[in-house]
Amino acid sequence: MKSTTEYFWFNSPEHRAYINITDNVSKVVAKSGIQDGLVLVSAMHITAGVFINDDEPGILEDIDEWLEGLAPMGEDYQHHNTGETNGDSHLKNILVGHQVIVPITKGQLDLGPWQQVFYAEFDGQRRKRLMMKVIGE
Amino acid sequence: MKSTTEYFWFNSPEHRAYINITDNVSKVVAKSGIQDGLVLVSAMHITAGVFINDDEPGILEDIDEWLEGLAPMGEDYQHHNTGETNGDSHLKNILVGHQVIVPITKGQLDLGPWQQVFYAEFDGQRRKRLMMKVIGE
Amino acid sequence: MKSTTEYFWFNSPEHRAYINITDNVSKVVAKSGIQDGLVLVSAMHITAGVFINDDEPGILEDIDEWLEGLAPMGEDYQHHNTGETNGDSHLKNILVGHQVIVPITKGQLDLGPWQQVFYAEFDGQRRKRLMMKVIGE
Repeated sequence: MKSTTEYFWFNSPEHRAYINITDNVSKVVAKSGIQDGLVLVSAMHITAGVFINDDEPGILEDIDEWLEGLAPMGEDYQHHNTGETNGDSHLKNILVGHQVIVPITKGQLDLGPWQQVFYAEFDGQRRKRLMMKVIGE
Repeated sequence: MKSTTEYFWFNSPEHRAYINITDNVSKVVAKSGIQDGLVLVSAMHITAGVFINDDEPGILEDIDEWLEGLAPMGEDYQHHNTGETNGDSHLKNILVGHQVIVPITKGQLDLGPWQQVFYAEFDGQRRKRLMMKVIGE
Repeated sequence: MKSTTEYFWFNSPEHRAYINITDNVSKVVAKSGIQDGLVLVSAMHITAGVFINDDEPGILEDIDEWLEGLAPMGEDYQHHNTGETNGDSHLKNILVGHQVIVPITKGQLDLGPWQQVFYAEFDGQRRKRLMMKVIGE
């Protein structure tokens, strides 16, 4: 079994952002030389997510509005007694999930035609980290 | 490390459907000869999900009704400006998740007594694909 | 490729509970001797979850209240026609997810500064099982 680990930093100017990182994942896999295996793509913060969906601006707006409806910003969360203001960002992280596994076949990401990997920032304007670990042969 | 990759096609007559695919996963694992490892079960579309729950008709109805309540069909989603009508299917995919990892121990799926693997179709009546990748020894 | 599998039992006195199991995961990884790889942490029941978030009492209360709002206990679920009363616990399992993968680098859990692994009990006061499988080199 071979493995490769890489870290990426984000610092989004927006409070919330949805960033297509599919090319980053592809490059890490290509560099690893792994032909068959899995790559874990995992946010290292509890106020960010990673998901796979369509890179269509309308659906990304829909996702953002929907998340805001189900886990609204500015509610009176208990977490805010610590001085934090990002309770909603934690809930959005749980709803979306913070990691995906992308299969690798013949050295390529084995994704469907519309599947793109997104880093979802739910509490931006600060440095946040994501990791990728490729394992396989 | 050994690995095996298999693809499955679905074309459900219903718009939404919950299909127990545990036997399919078992067969892929048996065929792989892998005694200890992991099998990734991952939808290749952004309007389908994969989850593990109980194969009890009532709870499957509850899940469907609950998903429809949280991400209703026929809302005025931005995504529909592209001509699509399946904005809700994308949101349901995000809520449920599109993949699970099933552990393999002694050549068997290492699941709890009630755990069954489901393919969740959120926009059926068309050909959709799912992939399984087994890795291990 | 090496692998190690361990099982843990829970029997929480509360109906719902959020138990930090990060130390348990660390110990299993240390015992495995694996320096680089992945550990799957997966609930073996359909009324429990596993997630990664902050070990801050306020946010854990917020998560519990939020889950109860989105998937309330005591609703008239179809699943209750079987005699069960835990329809909400199944839905909470789907919302949170039942498993995470923690990456292992240099023999350590490769988590961000606030990331802690939680076992989420949604239907306690009975024996429930969780499994961990470490794979790597």
